[in-house]
Amino acid sequence: MDDETRPGAFCAADRDAVHRCIAGRRDVRRGFQPDPIPDAVLARILRAGHHAPSVGFMQPWDFVVVRGEATKRAVHDAFRQANAEAALLFADDRRDAYRALKLEGILEAPVGLCITCDRSRHGPVVLGRTHQPATDLYSVVCAVQNIWLAARAEGVGVGWVSIISLDALRHALAIPDAIEPVAYLCLGYVDAFAPQPDLETNGWLQRLPLRDIVSFERFREPGDDSLAALLDP
Amino acid sequence: MDDETRPGAFCAADRDAVHRCIAGRRDVRRGFQPDPIPDAVLARILRAGHHAPSVGFMQPWDFVVVRGEATKRAVHDAFRQANAEAALLFADDRRDAYRALKLEGILEAPVGLCITCDRSRHGPVVLGRTHQPATDLYSVVCAVQNIWLAARAEGVGVGWVSIISLDALRHALAIPDAIEPVAYLCLGYVDAFAPQPDLETNGWLQRLPLRDIVSFERFREPGDDSLAALLDP
Repeated sequence: MDDETRPGAFCAADRDAVHRCIAGRRDVRRGFQPDPIPDAVLARILRAGHHAPSVGFMQPWDFVVVRGEATKRAVHDAFRQANAEAALLFADDRRDAYRALKLEGILEAPVGLCITCDRSRHGPVVLGRTHQPATDLYSVVCAVQNIWLAARAEGVGVGWVSIISLDALRHALAIPDAIEPVAYLCLGYVDAFAPQPDLETNGWLQRLPLRDIVSFERFREPGDDSLAALLDP
Repeated sequence: MDDETRPGAFCAADRDAVHRCIAGRRDVRRGFQPDPIPDAVLARILRAGHHAPSVGFMQPWDFVVVRGEATKRAVHDAFRQANAEAALLFADDRRDAYRALKLEGILEAPVGLCITCDRSRHGPVVLGRTHQPATDLYSVVCAVQNIWLAARAEGVGVGWVSIISLDALRHALAIPDAIEPVAYLCLGYVDAFAPQPDLETNGWLQRLPLRDIVSFERFREPGDDSLAALLDP
């Protein structure tokens, strides 16, 4: 049976659009345009986040939309402090390279978005979380990735700012102690999506060959397998 | 400027394909077809996983492809034990409902896929992980979500089996202690993708109104906002 005729399969053009979205998504830290994101576009992006999978259909996420200058400034201050601390953790030869990197667009991006996890939503026992307590946090990360991809399809760039203390983020957005901030994203139209990740372009690290990280039946067991031959172009 | 003309924006048809993929993705536990997934399809799905964002371009994931009956049987045994333990955690009225649910397709799905996190890949200091140590695990979850969506576009159903102890999973797939298993997925063609999540259909929980979980500028602060009006259909 041809693959396109499988129940629920997308036509080739739609399937390729999804693959192109996944391959062309970037962590955007520069080139944000000041134009606002129209409400209809932002609503579609948020709806994509809300349609993420969640353990036990828990939907533990909240989305805090940030558009005010004062809020962005508070988040940016927290980034700057964390980034100064972070630089000191790198060895001498790497520290200057680290400091030269542009790692966030908090003030330039028209929209900030904090995605949080309410770990006690629907009570203490959650279907599917009983043996893997982190799966509620993982559900929220799936929402982040949905947002990232939906935004890419809309031509909206997204950058995930992780160089920030979670307590500082709580403070800036009045997030209670019982709620776990998972991600702070910067969203906005961009002048371009780079053909590859910035950290690859500037030589920080290279993309690993896919065949080196796919194994068969047991961890790191190479397969003499027709699949392996197809993994890298 | 019209949105479709923004740099990098997809045409409306391609954009809608991405949204349709996100909205139509399901956690599949039933209806797997025994047909093998062609190598070319599986390779595209794995490549989608490998193009996830990762903190500091760390790419901390490994993908273990499971196709052998004995391996699936070991994973399934671990699920059965965890599931029996899990049932006891629910209150009486909920326990029978829990036991009646079909929560995995480990043996029926032609392909199992374990996605792991090598937390020490590239050394102890990772750009972007300095203040949020879980971001390497979160990167792996982004890879899981990419795989889930790419598979959906290919007409391949995916179910995430979380009712299993991570140590049992390590044992079944010979994963070393230093490596963190993050997800075990079941993949296969399906007889259909359900119109909504099973746990919604059977009344376990309902989908939350999006407007209840979107706030503005500060956590849970409602906005008298034109955006809010667009959030729920």
